[in-house]
Amino acid sequence: MIKIVEGGVTAAKGYMAASAAAGIKYEGRTDIALVYTEKPAACAGTFTTNVVKAAPVYWDKEIVEAGKPVHAVVLNSGIANACTGSEGKEINYAMASEIAGQLHVNPKEVLTASTGVIGMQIPREPLTKGAVLLKEALSNTKEAGTAAAKAIMTTDTVSKEAAASFEVNGVTVTVGGMSKGSGMIHPNMATMLSVTTTDASVSREILQGLVSEAVSDSFNMISVDRDTSTNDTYLVLANGESGVTIEKGTKAYEDFKEALFYVSTELSKQMAGDGEGCTKLMEVQVIHCETKEKAKVLSKSVITSNLVKTAVYGSDANWGRVLCALGYAGVDFNPERIDLVLEAGGERLTLIKGGVADHYSEEKATELLKQEKVTFICDMNEGTASATAWGCDLTYDYIKINADYRS
Amino acid sequence: MIKIVEGGVTAAKGYMAASAAAGIKYEGRTDIALVYTEKPAACAGTFTTNVVKAAPVYWDKEIVEAGKPVHAVVLNSGIANACTGSEGKEINYAMASEIAGQLHVNPKEVLTASTGVIGMQIPREPLTKGAVLLKEALSNTKEAGTAAAKAIMTTDTVSKEAAASFEVNGVTVTVGGMSKGSGMIHPNMATMLSVTTTDASVSREILQGLVSEAVSDSFNMISVDRDTSTNDTYLVLANGESGVTIEKGTKAYEDFKEALFYVSTELSKQMAGDGEGCTKLMEVQVIHCETKEKAKVLSKSVITSNLVKTAVYGSDANWGRVLCALGYAGVDFNPERIDLVLEAGGERLTLIKGGVADHYSEEKATELLKQEKVTFICDMNEGTASATAWGCDLTYDYIKINADYRS
Repeated sequence: MIKIVEGGVTAAKGYMAASAAAGIKYEGRTDIALVYTEKPAACAGTFTTNVVKAAPVYWDKEIVEAGKPVHAVVLNSGIANACTGSEGKEINYAMASEIAGQLHVNPKEVLTASTGVIGMQIPREPLTKGAVLLKEALSNTKEAGTAAAKAIMTTDTVSKEAAASFEVNGVTVTVGGMSKGSGMIHPNMATMLSVTTTDASVSREILQGLVSEAVSDSFNMISVDRDTSTNDTYLVLANGESGVTIEKGTKAYEDFKEALFYVSTELSKQMAGDGEGCTKLMEVQVIHCETKEKAKVLSKSVITSNLVKTAVYGSDANWGRVLCALGYAGVDFNPERIDLVLEAGGERLTLIKGGVADHYSEEKATELLKQEKVTFICDMNEGTASATAWGCDLTYDYIKINADYRS
Repeated sequence: MIKIVEGGVTAAKGYMAASAAAGIKYEGRTDIALVYTEKPAACAGTFTTNVVKAAPVYWDKEIVEAGKPVHAVVLNSGIANACTGSEGKEINYAMASEIAGQLHVNPKEVLTASTGVIGMQIPREPLTKGAVLLKEALSNTKEAGTAAAKAIMTTDTVSKEAAASFEVNGVTVTVGGMSKGSGMIHPNMATMLSVTTTDASVSREILQGLVSEAVSDSFNMISVDRDTSTNDTYLVLANGESGVTIEKGTKAYEDFKEALFYVSTELSKQMAGDGEGCTKLMEVQVIHCETKEKAKVLSKSVITSNLVKTAVYGSDANWGRVLCALGYAGVDFNPERIDLVLEAGGERLTLIKGGVADHYSEEKATELLKQEKVTFICDMNEGTASATAWGCDLTYDYIKINADYRS
């Protein structure tokens, strides 16, 4: 049984966070963040599957795969440090080593992450300045965690945090995380940066297994616009400060898993609902499907359909487009079995029954679609598996934001 | 050697066309078209791969697979006759048989096609009225062909036609076609209706083989918004009126293939350039790739990227997004080998050399991107295969058109 709690990366014991305005690209706002644990932490991660990977992604993958404990994650916004050649790799190393110097740890114990425009080099000097400022600002308060979450925002309009805790023999274990991600988000590591921390003691193997599972059901089930970035990074640090060790086959394991999944799902929904230009969060549940894999493919197909997204924006119950998106997902099903239900504001409306339009009120449908969160439930009526995907509507503001991004 | 000629479905000998305002859904415009050959024609076709298929698609697939000659194609706009259950199938049959009655042929010698909103039933009475009007209007003129092309438009802003001819022992053979398609277009039978006619005599087997090849390099290489429709239909009729028979291994075969490919490619580009809300045609050439299949996947990935499309709309040379789209295409390559060239208005500009930004003028890049046709040439520097895909920019008007489609 997990309990939802406030906070993000500083919710768990032994973690400190900080933000600073290093002047990397943005002016007048914070653009660099630090998450630090004095006690070394096991770490696991998943990264973009884009063949084109940013310098920090290569750095992190090596560290995660080496399996040694880490102490910190430094993240910057404004410049993605992608497509920056060997110079970019050196700058990324400099970022890690400046922080390592301030914290008196090894550079390889400092993970890095960047987000922002592709192709520009991160200037060297702000990294030195930023590392000093971050060290000075380190704090274990909730506010420090939120400050870090804000510093990594790019086109996000809100910072994203989530945390949950559970008890093991009276001892509290906490899992908390932060994310950024708004545009350029898509499954296969939805473009985003996410750092989750926990004070549980978890072996690297168990942690990596759970992280990959969590990603599969959360971060990989959201999409704003199908563009999988060069920078997607999801890191989880476990420093054992709670004194509780998580072993497979125990209730603690189940609770830990639930907490981790809660945090990753919650962060995913926050990102999907903050998609560039987004006015509505869309949720697509595919139920009674033959397999979970099929259900995932189907739900993601609907959530990524430009035509469904624009219809939602226009509050138009154009169920034909939903059916069409299911139909080109690439998996087989019997169209004559499908029921489609629209759910919003606590009310439900059946749009399709057995593959053809049900008798429903267009006015009612439009009213439901005007809510800030709309859910399509696609009942495939063929099995017992299900999956949920999240996304958002496609609006004029998306175009506005993206036709002019580099300004 | 082929010669580009004017016209569309009536360019080849022995074909007549017509349009009429049957009042199926639209008012004040033509909404039904007919293509007719008195001499029976071999026919081949390809259809949507969407699991959800419209009634006319089932009808046509059966006819094409049965392999018997046909006489006509009747196409309507306004209502797609998709997700219409058994009633929809009956209505589709009625559409075929009304025309068959007027032409004194068998209903199974009349192919059908529909485009428009999903889920509504086509009203019965306009079909009877429409068949009479079409029969009366049949003509073999160029204008009749264009009238048919106009009648099948939905959100298209222009009608689409293309034709080419070649000589075999002094006898002219012609291939001509029409298409409609604007929104809801994507590879795997880009949502569109297309009818191509030829006066060559071609066996069904040879025709189907060429049609599938042509589709692979043309219609399946365009995208407006990734939504593969429920109605995609591409039909080719060959009535032999020229007296020339096309056999494999001959020069006539090569010329016929070139003419067919020219028509399908030309129609594809016209559709891509008329994408809903489109202001610019985008062409993406992937060259020096390892395999043609890879090149296709890569070029289509770029053409369908919302972020690339919005950047083009904003005339922003955001090559990072192009690289990113190549990177998530799902195929492997070495990012450090890629060169990217922007071409427009006869001028070229190198954006990326060896995976990193080249030194180029942003002003120049913006100037090129303001052209109505922009081309990205992605040189993978790893092989000898290539492929080209077409699409268009993503604009406010796309949102406007699609957030409000059913009004």
